[in-house]
Amino acid sequence: MDGKKIGMKPIKRYEKIERKPPKGYDSANDFFEAVFMDKDMIWMGQNTNHLVGDVIADAMASCVLEKEYCKYPPPEGFSELKKLILNDLGFEDFEVFLTAGATESLYLCMHALLEPEDNVITCDPGYLIIGTFADRFADEVKYVPIYNEENDYKLTPQLVRENLDENTKMIILIDPLNPLGVCYTEDEIKEFAQIAIENDIYLLHDVTYKDFAREHFLVADYAPENTLTVYSFSKIFGMAGVRIGAVISTDYIIEAIKNVVVNDLGVNIIAQYGAIKGLQTKDEWMDEVREITFHNQKLIKETVDKIDGIFLPVYPSDANMMVIDVSEAGINPKELSEYLLEREIFTREGEYTSKLFGDKYLRVSYSIPTNEIEVFCEEFPKAIEALRKN
Amino acid sequence: MDGKKIGMKPIKRYEKIERKPPKGYDSANDFFEAVFMDKDMIWMGQNTNHLVGDVIADAMASCVLEKEYCKYPPPEGFSELKKLILNDLGFEDFEVFLTAGATESLYLCMHALLEPEDNVITCDPGYLIIGTFADRFADEVKYVPIYNEENDYKLTPQLVRENLDENTKMIILIDPLNPLGVCYTEDEIKEFAQIAIENDIYLLHDVTYKDFAREHFLVADYAPENTLTVYSFSKIFGMAGVRIGAVISTDYIIEAIKNVVVNDLGVNIIAQYGAIKGLQTKDEWMDEVREITFHNQKLIKETVDKIDGIFLPVYPSDANMMVIDVSEAGINPKELSEYLLEREIFTREGEYTSKLFGDKYLRVSYSIPTNEIEVFCEEFPKAIEALRKN
Repeated sequence: MDGKKIGMKPIKRYEKIERKPPKGYDSANDFFEAVFMDKDMIWMGQNTNHLVGDVIADAMASCVLEKEYCKYPPPEGFSELKKLILNDLGFEDFEVFLTAGATESLYLCMHALLEPEDNVITCDPGYLIIGTFADRFADEVKYVPIYNEENDYKLTPQLVRENLDENTKMIILIDPLNPLGVCYTEDEIKEFAQIAIENDIYLLHDVTYKDFAREHFLVADYAPENTLTVYSFSKIFGMAGVRIGAVISTDYIIEAIKNVVVNDLGVNIIAQYGAIKGLQTKDEWMDEVREITFHNQKLIKETVDKIDGIFLPVYPSDANMMVIDVSEAGINPKELSEYLLEREIFTREGEYTSKLFGDKYLRVSYSIPTNEIEVFCEEFPKAIEALRKN
Repeated sequence: MDGKKIGMKPIKRYEKIERKPPKGYDSANDFFEAVFMDKDMIWMGQNTNHLVGDVIADAMASCVLEKEYCKYPPPEGFSELKKLILNDLGFEDFEVFLTAGATESLYLCMHALLEPEDNVITCDPGYLIIGTFADRFADEVKYVPIYNEENDYKLTPQLVRENLDENTKMIILIDPLNPLGVCYTEDEIKEFAQIAIENDIYLLHDVTYKDFAREHFLVADYAPENTLTVYSFSKIFGMAGVRIGAVISTDYIIEAIKNVVVNDLGVNIIAQYGAIKGLQTKDEWMDEVREITFHNQKLIKETVDKIDGIFLPVYPSDANMMVIDVSEAGINPKELSEYLLEREIFTREGEYTSKLFGDKYLRVSYSIPTNEIEVFCEEFPKAIEALRKN
């Protein structure tokens, strides 16, 4: 049923990221479902991690089979989990708020802190849903273009300063950055902290990919009262499909976030049990996950280096994904991802993470078994030659 | 870290349901966590269902062990699950939107449809978080007092008509109602549909407890373009802790809800697999769950009938919970629930579901094994005699 307008006015519409489905699919959801159901698909399109052993799965299965899930979890989550998150970040004196994925944390931060006259600064390429959320509550989202060598493909402290104005309420740093894999130095992190303190504004530090970085630093260590640290279990822990994340900040800010709570009956219990086990055992398996991921990245680099007109803007990447620029070869990234998909390799065209530069690159993630990366390295050069226009 | 004000103004605060923890606990969350961890606790405080066999648990455990959860689910969920939900409701021509629990559906309905000048009509006693959500987006939430015999402890069509005005945008019907277990007749449902159509307003029909009712009717069958049906897996399916629910409406309304999506990476996969299995097998186990639940209700009724000054305002209840009025005995429901808790029986004092009548009643749910209900029936009269003031 199509439905009709109810009441005096049409329903207010917010900006939405519209995605056209690839050829042959009625909707983007039908497409994702078909990809999901193909068990032979090589999974390089979601920055997910398929390298963690059985320890987290076993903990979640036990929770399921004991039927702990018939009860509601404590509404604000298990205290052990919150302590383990603080410990993982090396924080002592902060509060943790658990959510159904880091996405929900991002949403709540925007809802709790932004007002209609505010603007926020973020970057393009970047993780676009953050801007979409900010847009619902603030006046303007400034997407600073960062896709060039001059600023090392980063939202630098200097670029932030150039875009600040009296209505700026929040700076959003995704670090390492999806999709480019750039990461900040300790000096840069200190400078961002300084900018937040000097200007009396919030800094949202999304550290979803931190454990893939060679080195990583936390803004909250330098601007504790201004910073919201957003934490995810989807990537290093390989738990994307169970949807659990958190935001960590001062008691004052977390109280404001509780004030706009959505899921007041808590985060799913199975995910919480998995997250606890993941944090308890991380030291045992993380190095191996990182090593395989770095090795896979190197294999992709070697493949790309052999192809004319194709390059990696950022290498090494400090995340489990990277960008392959195909623009000089005249290749449309969407055509390239569809070509690879037909060979059961799932990647993402640039427009998924960029409004300005989406026609330039393909994003590939590589925290998957190396034998699957080898298939990619065999197929990718063929795809380029087949689609090359320059 | 307590934190401090950032920026020009203090953070805007919305109305929040504040809950004082019982004696001996620092916070409400500490209290719930302690209750959760006590494996011997008799679970009558959450309207959860502990009577479903292993079939859903087994499906979720398989999903976990196959590590399907490393991937993201399709962002709008599995199409099979959406079809099964429509089928369960006997709907054909509606859209389904899946959320991390029905709570999130309620939130999204309010965010998508309410504007600052609107008011909504709901009832007290009732499920208070709905009003809290409406309050964030609308001008006023009218809590119609319904705790009296004259209107059968229901938000009747007549009461709704008396409270309508030109700014009313939405009527909220929880049916069967948490906490009283009242349910609407077909004639009442038709009249609500008529009210919605005549006044060109939305009707939110929360059917979370429908499968416990002797008979149940859907407003969407009579006012399809005005109705949002909110659906839960927490109760009849016994899946409270995995957090999955849905809202079902016309394409026009669901598009508006997608427009304010929070969890744009979808609902956790394990819950979706469990929900699919639950719907596929419901016919095999539902009658037994209903029979045990009705039998348990009868045992509580027999116990209450033997005690002076205590009564059941509504019997039989059409849900898996009921209200026991203890006000004529001069008993404070909070003291009563704390007394029972010391005997490892978890119930809920009235203030959890009422601002106006919370001092009058205790809410007990009873979709748990009968031997546990028998313990309650033994302890409850002793608790009343110990605390009685009249």
